Formats: sequence, C-alpha cells, structure tokens
Amino acid sequence: MLPFRIHRVEPSGKARAGELVTPHGIVRTPAFMPVGTAGTVKGMAAWELAGLAPEMVLANTYHLVLRPGVERIERLGGLHRLMGWPGPILTDSGGYQVFSLAGRRRLDDEGVTFRSHLDGDEHRLTPAGVISTQARFGVDVAMVLDECVPYPSEPGVVARSVERSMAWAGTGLNEAERLRATGEWQGGVFAIQQGGVDEAQRRGCTERLAGLGFDGFAIGGLAVGEPTEVLHEAIAMAAPLLPEDRPRYLMGVGYPEDLLQAMACGVDLFDCVLPTRSARTGKVFTSRGELVIKNACHADDDSPLDPECECPTCSVYSRGALRHLFVAGEVTSVVALTMHNLSYFLSLMRRAREAIMAGRYARFRSVVEAGRRVS
Amino acid sequence: MLPFRIHRVEPSGKARAGELVTPHGIVRTPAFMPVGTAGTVKGMAAWELAGLAPEMVLANTYHLVLRPGVERIERLGGLHRLMGWPGPILTDSGGYQVFSLAGRRRLDDEGVTFRSHLDGDEHRLTPAGVISTQARFGVDVAMVLDECVPYPSEPGVVARSVERSMAWAGTGLNEAERLRATGEWQGGVFAIQQGGVDEAQRRGCTERLAGLGFDGFAIGGLAVGEPTEVLHEAIAMAAPLLPEDRPRYLMGVGYPEDLLQAMACGVDLFDCVLPTRSARTGKVFTSRGELVIKNACHADDDSPLDPECECPTCSVYSRGALRHLFVAGEVTSVVALTMHNLSYFLSLMRRAREAIMAGRYARFRSVVEAGRRVS
Repeated sequence: MLPFRIHRVEPSGKARAGELVTPHGIVRTPAFMPVGTAGTVKGMAAWELAGLAPEMVLANTYHLVLRPGVERIERLGGLHRLMGWPGPILTDSGGYQVFSLAGRRRLDDEGVTFRSHLDGDEHRLTPAGVISTQARFGVDVAMVLDECVPYPSEPGVVARSVERSMAWAGTGLNEAERLRATGEWQGGVFAIQQGGVDEAQRRGCTERLAGLGFDGFAIGGLAVGEPTEVLHEAIAMAAPLLPEDRPRYLMGVGYPEDLLQAMACGVDLFDCVLPTRSARTGKVFTSRGELVIKNACHADDDSPLDPECECPTCSVYSRGALRHLFVAGEVTSVVALTMHNLSYFLSLMRRAREAIMAGRYARFRSVVEAGRRVS
Repeated sequence: MLPFRIHRVEPSGKARAGELVTPHGIVRTPAFMPVGTAGTVKGMAAWELAGLAPEMVLANTYHLVLRPGVERIERLGGLHRLMGWPGPILTDSGGYQVFSLAGRRRLDDEGVTFRSHLDGDEHRLTPAGVISTQARFGVDVAMVLDECVPYPSEPGVVARSVERSMAWAGTGLNEAERLRATGEWQGGVFAIQQGGVDEAQRRGCTERLAGLGFDGFAIGGLAVGEPTEVLHEAIAMAAPLLPEDRPRYLMGVGYPEDLLQAMACGVDLFDCVLPTRSARTGKVFTSRGELVIKNACHADDDSPLDPECECPTCSVYSRGALRHLFVAGEVTSVVALTMHNLSYFLSLMRRAREAIMAGRYARFRSVVEAGRRVS
C-alpha cells in the first residue's frame, strides 16, 4: 500500500495534515488536484504547471482512452511523458463520464458499454479493465469503476448501485494486486464510497470496503446538483465514515467554501474543474470573493485581480489589461486567468495545511470565509 | 536621436551587428520582433515572453486605437504596463492595416479616414496624429504614417504614394520633435522607404528622408505577395540605399530564409506574424525545415519538434504529445507551438548575431539553409 502518514489533526476538530507517498513523489495533504482532462491542464503548458507546483494532478481516463488511446499513450512513454508532468497523477476510472452519456451507454453486472462522443465507436469499461488501463497509463493512483446515480434517486436505485459498485471495487482491487505482483505497476487504488445522501447506505458501503487493502477512499456521488447546505451536511456525514488511517478524497468538489468545509470534516484530497473552467469564461476567484473580468467596472482598473495574490498574473497584469485581453478574445487571457485561479486554489490549500499544522485551522477558515464575503 | 552603434560588419559582405539604445533598454541587432498585435503576443503570457527575452516587441497602433483605445491605455499606465512587458516596444503607425480596409477607408492629402472593423465607428489617421498616439502609448520607437500601395502597381501610382508618404514623414517628425522638446516623450521615430520594386523611386525617396533626423529607416511595401526571388532581389536593392549609420528595419518579413538574405544585405530589424500565426495553425519551424504537427506521421513520434532546439516545448513535449494536444483543440498546444516557433526565430537571430560578430556570417547562413533543406 502507498505509505500515508498523518502529521497533525486539528485539536478542536477533524481537519488533518499528512502526506501520501506515491511512485512519482510525495503528496502533502490536504491537496487540490488541478484537472488535466485530456492530457493537459487546459491552458497550462507543462512548465507553467510545474511552476504552480500542485501536489498531484488529475486526468480523465474516459477522454484519454478515446483520444489519443491507451496504446498510443504507451508508445509515447506513458501519461507522465505525454503531459510533460513528472509529479503524481491520479486518474478517474472513466465511469463518471460514461454514466453521463445517458442515451449512449448500456449497463450490465460486468461493466458498461458506450459509444465514443468523438467517432461513435463502441468501447467497454469493466472493473478489471479500467484498473489495467490506468496501470498502462502509469498513474500513481487509480480509481475503481463505480456506478454513479443521479441526485435525487429512489432508495432502491441507490442500494442496487452500491451493491454493484462494491462488487466492482473488489474486482478492481484484485486486478491491481495482480499487476503489482508482476511488477508491471506500482500505483495505488482508491475505492469509492457511494450511497447518495443516505447515511446507512454510505456506512454499510464503507464497512464493506474498509480492510480490503485499498490505498485510499473517495466520497463519490456528491456535488451532483444538490444545494450547498445539503452538500455540506452530506460531507459532514460521509467523511467521518471513511477509515481514519487512509487518505480521503472528495471527488469533483468544489468552491473554496466547500473545500474549507470538507477539510474541517477530515477530507485530504480534492479535484474540480472550477478554477480552470471558470477562467475560460472570465470568472475569477479572489480573497474577496468572485469577480467577472468582462464587467465594465474593471475596464479602467489598474489594480491586480487580488491584492493578496502573488501569482505571475497578479504580479504583471492589471484588471483593466486582463479585461481588454479577455474582451479581445486573446488566448493569453485564458492562460493568465487560469494561472491566477489555480494559484488561488493551490495557495488556499497550502495555507490551510499550514494552519492545520499550527493548530489554528478553525480560525483560518473563518478569516478566509469572512474575506470572501466582503465583495 | 536614439544612440545606435555598429559593433561589427561582416568582412566579406554587408551583414552587421549593433545596438540601438531605447528608453526601455538596449536592442541588440540584428533582432526579430515578435508581434503583439492587440497588446499581447498571442498565446504568450507576459512571463513567457519575458523568458523568451526578445530584444524588442511590436504592437499594432490600429488595433490598440480601436480597442482598448488611447485614453484607456493611458489610464491603465501605458502600453508597457498593459502588456506586462518592460522592454522596448515599437509600434507601427496603423497605416498598413487601414490601407488593407479597401472599401472602408477614404484617403486625402492630410490623412486617411476609416471605419472600425469592430463597431463601424469612424476614425482618422493623420501624420501628426499617429505620432502623438504612439507617444501617448509610451513606445520606444514610433513609425510614421505612410501610404502603402499593392504589388504590382502602375509607376504613376507608386510615384504619387511616395510623394505623399514623404510629406507625411516630415509632418510626423515635426510632431515627434515637438513632443520630445516638451519632455512628454523620449522615443525615436523611423521613416519608411517606399517605391515598390522601382530602384529609382526607392533611391529618390531615401535621399529625401536621409539627414532629416529620423532615428531609423524602414523598408516598406515589400512582402506583399511577390515571389521569393523578387522579394530577395528587392531587399538587396532597397537595403543598401538606406543610411548606413542608422538602424534598418524590414517590415513584415518573413521566413527564415528571408531574414538570412536581409541580414546579408545589412538589415537590422524585423517583425513578422509568421511564427505566432503559424503556431495557431499547427505549422512548426525547425532547423530541418517546416512541419505540420497534425500530420499522422507525428502521432507515435516520441522525439521533440526540433532536436537542435532547447526551448521549453522541446524540453518536455514529444511530437506525438503535441499532435494529440493540437488535434484535441487544447489551448496548451497553441502556447507550446508559439513558444517553440518564437524560440526558433529568436535563436536564429542570436546565432546570426554571434556569427556576424565572429566574422563568419556567410558560413552560418549556408549551414542553416542547408539544414532546412533536409526534410
């Protein structure tokens, strides 16, 4: 199993700081993973990503299997080489994307068959196949295949999806153990807790996953459209159910306030497209809340996006300049806003980790949240 | 006048290495200026451009006047601050773009009136106005307004355009001297030699411009669609007519072979959209000639774009990875290919300068040209 050490737990709560040791380096937690869907964090050349120094990066198996494909990634030297990123990589199993393809996929107990959104070709994901694929990518952490159900779903639907996901998790872990035994791969495997917002389901699910030898545990099936209060309650319910001695990963979340809540509940890992996707639409995250760069109020503003930010963008560009570049449709604005948004998220996580290590996380959280309510 | 020193002239030819001192730094010549049309070199964030360390950057007055506008650039702290680029900037006068707006502009002896391609608003360029605008941008080198005629044009048309351009150059210089006398601006002004491919016209034109106090002289009206041999002959004819003791700038040129020819004829400065625009269409410049990244032959190729290149792109990305990113429509591919193409052009110029300083330019040129004919 990948070594995982917890260095400090917030005395008055559950927030924790630790480190996960992977084949491509140490992931200091809590950590936010920028999303590199198709083999790049959108808009960030490899040297820019290296400058941002994320602890780990996420890539999407679904997109990479369809293009450029597993064989091609192998021929090009693996996913790290394709991305030009030498640090830790976690990939999802592809299941989440496939379950979003409502009309184009067919589910059975052994896996899910779907048609590519690119060329209509038929592909199949199986619990063992997705692990084998991620191992061929050469990733540091692979996720098991799970069935995702929409929110809200009937209890019976949730129960059946949990049952199937549990069976698939076991099959995936067996495949990982086989690959590791042959020396073909040295990565870790994370299981995924499901169960919607039903505590009994999540508890039962977790009890069956714990002790099987997974390297970590993810909270799946959240941030699928529920209101913030429901999400925050679900995080508080779901996170403590996961084993304490292994990394906990909240998939696909979220806003800074969601990360702060989840860290307080003892979550260690996060990923979300929010900072990168928002940059492409001109939405900017700052210590004073969010702003929309194309708004006319920024046109003559010579101040930086965030006076508290030390990122390259805030060091050289004014809001007025960034608004001009965005309105003019310049690719440079995507690069600059992505750089800033990712810097904001990564800096937030670094500062959170420092606060946990210093035993002052609760105070840190309230200061950050108060600052973001200002604007 | 901006100080200009020539350090070395190739013993067996006319190629020369020198330096032009501007308010924002020294421009070591020969130098290629990346084009930052609308306030950014497309795809290059300010810190990437800084890493490329071009001697000088070009921006387009036409585009900047229309958006974000002169007043806004002033309010945002000038063009250097807008671009996040602290080094030398040269701007064109806007004339070239306006003369391309065939149906939307009206020419008279005092200037040219046109409608914006963005919102249809009417604008006017005058010989004094374009200098004043560039001074308000705070640029290091401003270009005079000139009338550009298409190739080929009737001799009478060429003669009339030369006549008008000469009058405008004088008016522009007077305006620059007025601004410099008041201390409002410390930049230099370059005049533009016109005359198509007619040597007598270019000679007469140059004789009238020389000795008036211009900081440098540009060769205008070339690279407007003529075949390579015609272009190369025209460069060999036009460049030596310009005063020897001032920088010579060949506008809008060109391919590496064009730069090598022009340097051999004693040209000091260049600009062209070729490396940046080509990057966006997936065309790559290398020491072995050009390649088209989307071609299937690169799909499984783990080698860099150019084995002789030390740019960030060639250090981390394989051809196969870049093809994947380009085919997937990732902005990262634009960034990476732009970085490489600009690195290739800038490295070519640095190596040319070293060769001139070492008295081996002719040999350097033939080795580069032979290498580029390989593929």
